[in-house]
Amino acid sequence: MRPRSQQKIAVVLVSGGMDSCVTAAIAARKYSLALLHVNYGQRTEARELKAFHDVADFYGAKQRLVVSLKALEAIGHSSLTDRDIKVSRANLKRKGIPSSYVPFRNAHLLATATSWAEALGASAIFIGAVEEDSSGYPDCRRIFYDAFEKTIAAGTKPGTRIKILTPVIGMKKDEIVKTGVRLKAPLHLTWSCYQSSHKACGVCDSCALRLRGFQRAGMKDPLPYAKRPLYR
Amino acid sequence: MRPRSQQKIAVVLVSGGMDSCVTAAIAARKYSLALLHVNYGQRTEARELKAFHDVADFYGAKQRLVVSLKALEAIGHSSLTDRDIKVSRANLKRKGIPSSYVPFRNAHLLATATSWAEALGASAIFIGAVEEDSSGYPDCRRIFYDAFEKTIAAGTKPGTRIKILTPVIGMKKDEIVKTGVRLKAPLHLTWSCYQSSHKACGVCDSCALRLRGFQRAGMKDPLPYAKRPLYR
Repeated sequence: MRPRSQQKIAVVLVSGGMDSCVTAAIAARKYSLALLHVNYGQRTEARELKAFHDVADFYGAKQRLVVSLKALEAIGHSSLTDRDIKVSRANLKRKGIPSSYVPFRNAHLLATATSWAEALGASAIFIGAVEEDSSGYPDCRRIFYDAFEKTIAAGTKPGTRIKILTPVIGMKKDEIVKTGVRLKAPLHLTWSCYQSSHKACGVCDSCALRLRGFQRAGMKDPLPYAKRPLYR
Repeated sequence: MRPRSQQKIAVVLVSGGMDSCVTAAIAARKYSLALLHVNYGQRTEARELKAFHDVADFYGAKQRLVVSLKALEAIGHSSLTDRDIKVSRANLKRKGIPSSYVPFRNAHLLATATSWAEALGASAIFIGAVEEDSSGYPDCRRIFYDAFEKTIAAGTKPGTRIKILTPVIGMKKDEIVKTGVRLKAPLHLTWSCYQSSHKACGVCDSCALRLRGFQRAGMKDPLPYAKRPLYR
């Protein structure tokens, strides 16, 4: 391993959830971490922000940046940001785009990460998107990240080389749990529930995916839950 | 022309400057206008915002949205947003990227426009970027917009069709002035100066490009200027 001062810098998007925590654990093996948290008016933002700082402290991240994307809040159109739209109960068999989809959200996250990466001279952006076992968001697919990487090359200063790394994108949730445990990622510090900040609800899409991941990995999720249904 | 209610919707980015005003004039011929203004901590934001609302009133825009991108302000690294970096005097012969470059700024503008377009069901985004006669920003080139258009197709809901139109991208500033005059665009309501909000300074990059455009078009810029140098 190189001495830390000579390490390349990676901007890692850390929401406070499990996938981005495991992504940070993977990035930390090769890069100096610049951790970025984006608030876009989520119902559970205060809890997610705490998780972000807890994870950043755990990794002793040299640089951290917290920014608000008021635009997504103003545009609304998602149950995550718009109080008039109900968070739907989990239905892991449902096809199509769930009500929690925030239009083109990940492009905002990546634009922010890219501006910061360009300013810092970072060479990589890590994002914990999950394609296979995800909720069906169009901006969680690798084809989206490939297209965005080309957009970065076209829209930044000449000589800028920033790649987008999505190390968990092909993993099922149980593989993410296992990878996190293997890398000693602080899963107990993360937060995934879309609906509640005290005890996780256990029934929103995000809780259901997380709980099913732990159940399939044969492990117990260390977080407190209001309900802990068995998912298949 | 179709009745207004059946017109397609376009999201038009309107900074308050001349290029985006002429772009709005072009969009207004075929689309119902949804005008978007983005504040990212520019020194002259209050004046630009006034220009935006004046232009929106002029066109009777049905929908308008003003959003703040605090992220770009937090990241800084540009004389437009960072008080510690001086706005450089115009040097229209200079090569390279000027100090007013905001890292990857236009990707943030387009991500915001895309989210709003997806929520509104709009079919086009107009942006008044200028490539040929511009200040050399990498995110003002058509290859950047082509790449971003592919990113939109990859990252939005299936069936979403949003094109990015850059009608003035190949124009010189004097052509933009002439086109604006021909379309009766309200150039007297616009604001371009990067440095001052009362009288335009006449010497920053943006003033120099604008003044030269009017001079080459053989017309007088209706705005008040502190200095009105002759540019070649």
